[in-house]
Amino acid sequence: MASTTTPSSTLMNFEPTEFSPIRWKSGHLELLDQRLLPHQVSWLSFHDASTVAQAITDMVVRGAPAIGITAAYGVVLSALAHQTALTPEHLQPITADIALLAKSRPTAINLMWALNRMERCLLNAVSEHSSSDAILATVMEEAILIHQQDIQFCHSIGAHGASLLSPNSTVYTHCNAGALATGGHGTALGVIRTAFAQHKISRVFAGETRPWLQGARLTSWELQQAGIPTLLVTEGAAGHTLKQHAVDWLIVGADRIAADGSVANKVGTYNLAILAQHHGCKVMVAAPSSTFDLTITQGEAIPIEQRAEQEVTQYQGTQIAPEGVSAVNPSFDVTPPSLIDAIVTERGIIERPNRDKIAAHFQQ
Amino acid sequence: MASTTTPSSTLMNFEPTEFSPIRWKSGHLELLDQRLLPHQVSWLSFHDASTVAQAITDMVVRGAPAIGITAAYGVVLSALAHQTALTPEHLQPITADIALLAKSRPTAINLMWALNRMERCLLNAVSEHSSSDAILATVMEEAILIHQQDIQFCHSIGAHGASLLSPNSTVYTHCNAGALATGGHGTALGVIRTAFAQHKISRVFAGETRPWLQGARLTSWELQQAGIPTLLVTEGAAGHTLKQHAVDWLIVGADRIAADGSVANKVGTYNLAILAQHHGCKVMVAAPSSTFDLTITQGEAIPIEQRAEQEVTQYQGTQIAPEGVSAVNPSFDVTPPSLIDAIVTERGIIERPNRDKIAAHFQQ
Repeated sequence: MASTTTPSSTLMNFEPTEFSPIRWKSGHLELLDQRLLPHQVSWLSFHDASTVAQAITDMVVRGAPAIGITAAYGVVLSALAHQTALTPEHLQPITADIALLAKSRPTAINLMWALNRMERCLLNAVSEHSSSDAILATVMEEAILIHQQDIQFCHSIGAHGASLLSPNSTVYTHCNAGALATGGHGTALGVIRTAFAQHKISRVFAGETRPWLQGARLTSWELQQAGIPTLLVTEGAAGHTLKQHAVDWLIVGADRIAADGSVANKVGTYNLAILAQHHGCKVMVAAPSSTFDLTITQGEAIPIEQRAEQEVTQYQGTQIAPEGVSAVNPSFDVTPPSLIDAIVTERGIIERPNRDKIAAHFQQ
Repeated sequence: MASTTTPSSTLMNFEPTEFSPIRWKSGHLELLDQRLLPHQVSWLSFHDASTVAQAITDMVVRGAPAIGITAAYGVVLSALAHQTALTPEHLQPITADIALLAKSRPTAINLMWALNRMERCLLNAVSEHSSSDAILATVMEEAILIHQQDIQFCHSIGAHGASLLSPNSTVYTHCNAGALATGGHGTALGVIRTAFAQHKISRVFAGETRPWLQGARLTSWELQQAGIPTLLVTEGAAGHTLKQHAVDWLIVGADRIAADGSVANKVGTYNLAILAQHHGCKVMVAAPSSTFDLTITQGEAIPIEQRAEQEVTQYQGTQIAPEGVSAVNPSFDVTPPSLIDAIVTERGIIERPNRDKIAAHFQQ
C-alpha cells in the first residue's frame, strides 16, 4: 500500500551495511522477529503505526535503542497513512499514533526521545513545506538519521568502553544489549565486539536472562556468529561464576538512566551489580546518551514495567508451575550509581557516576 | 520378585502417614518421579540398587535428605538380591552396590551418611545373626528408621526454625527443601509450614531455580497444596523483590555443611545470601545434622557437581540456545558462614555459625 503512494525513492529502502534487526524496505518497516531466534530468522512487515506499537509491546523487537528506532519508523508509517492531510491543522491522527507508540512499553526512555524528535521534525516540516512529498521526505530522513546515528553511537560506545578493559579480560553480560537491541553493533555487546577485536577479551559469560531468555537465545547467537568464546550461565550460577572465574567486568546496557546515575535495565542487572561489587568485578553500563532521562532525579522514580505472570509460569505456552500459582514479573530493576564503575555513552566515559558528573557530561 | 522371597511382613510396606516422595511397597522401593511434577504424579518401582543409583543421578528423586533415605532402601534391595549369601565372607556384591550408590551424586553428604549407617548395620547384623531373615529384617528396620527419623527431624527443625520468626514475616526460599526433598514435611519448607501454622508467615517468595525449575515445579506445588500464599520469582528478580518487599528471612536447605559452617546448597543460594545481606534480610539454613561433614574444614573443599550443559541450553529436550553454544552448569554453590544468620538442625539453632559453635552443637 505505502509503496504505491511513496513520493520519493528515499522512502523506499534503508538497510544498514552491518547487521540490524530493523530495516525499511519498499516503503514499509520490517522487523526481525526476535521471539523466534535463534531457531528461525523471520522478518515481519509493518504498514501502520498501531501494529508497530503492538509489536513493541509483544517484544517482536526489544532493547531500548531498537525500540526508539522502530517507533521513529512507526511515525513515518503514520505520516504516510495520513499524507493527504499533512497540514498543521490536521496532524491529530499522527499525534494520536505517536501517543499510542509512546505507551507501547513504559521503561525505555529512548522510545520517548525518538518520538519527541520525530514529532518536532514533523511539526517543523509541516510549517516549512506545503508539499506532502517534501514533508514525508523530511520525516523519513529523520528516522533514517536516528537509525544511522544509533549505529555510529554504538561504535563510539564500543571504542570508549573497550578503552577501559585490560588485555585478557573476562566479561559477564546480561540480557541482550547487542546489534539486536540497537540499530546495529550493540551497546554492551558493542564494547565486547570492539574489545574482542582489540584482543582484550578472552571469554564472555552470558546470563541466560529468564524469563525471555534473551541471553540464551540472542546474546549467545550474536557472540557465536562473531566468533567470541561464550559460556551461557543461569542467573542462579552468577555468584559462583564470578567467584570461580574472577570475572573482570560486568558490562550491561540500559533502558533509562536517571539524573543521579541510577540505571534501569533488564531485571537481574541489580543482582549482578551487587554480586559484582562483592567479588571485586567492575560494572560498566553502555548506552547512548538518549538513554538518560534528566527529568528523573532518582532511580525510585523510574517506572518499572510489570509483565504478565504467564511469562514466568509457562514456557512457550507450556505450563511449568502448577495452574493457579502466581508470579511476580518485573521486566526491569534499578541499579544505584554506588554500584556502577562507569557509564559509557557515545560522548565518552562517566567514571563513578554522580549527579554532577552526569550534568557535566551533557554540557560537553 | 522380591515380594515372593520376602522373609517377614516388616519388609512388605512402609509409607509414612504424612506425604513422602519415597515409600516401600510390596517388598520394593517406590519413588515419586519428581521430573514429571507438577503435571503428573507418577510412582516408579525399583527392585535393585543399580537402578536406584541411576534414579538418583537422573534426579527422579532429589534433595539431600531424600537422596540419603533412597540410598538406604537401595541397600535393602541389594541385601534382598543377595539374601542367599548374607555372611561376613560374601558381602562384596552388597558393598559394591553401596559404592555404586555412593557415586550417584557427589555433593549431598546425607547420601554418604545413610550409606555408612546402612553398611555398619549390615556388618553388625551378619556378625550377630546367622538367619538371613533376621539380617534382612534388621537392615530393613534401619532403613525405615532413617526414613522415620528424617520426618521427625524435619518437625524438630520446623519448630526450632519457626521460633526465630516474628509474626507477619515475609520469607524467600530457593529450590525445593520440602517434603519432596526429605522423608516428609521438609527442612526449609518444614520451617515455613510450622511457622505458617503459627500464623507467623504472610507470604512466601519461591525462586524458580533454573535450570531444573524445582521452585516453579515443586515448591510452588507443595505450598499451593498447603494453602500458603506464594509468589514465584525468577532468580533475576530476586534483588528487586528483596528490596521492594522488605523480605524478612531467606530460608534454604543444604546439601553439605563444612566444619566452619560453609553451606553447599542448590546453585543460586550463594547469590541470594549476598543479596539478602545487602538488603538486611536474615539468612537461615535448615537441615538435619546428618548434612554436616565435619571432615571438611572449609567450604572450598566441598565437591561441587557439574551437570550436563544441555540442562541449560535445552528445555525438556527442546533447544533454547543456538546449537554449539556451551554453558556452565554447577549444580551447587557454597555460601560462607559470614553470610548466614542461623543454621537450624533437629538438635537446635546455631546462630552466626562458626567452627566452635558447630563443634559445640555436636557435643550437646
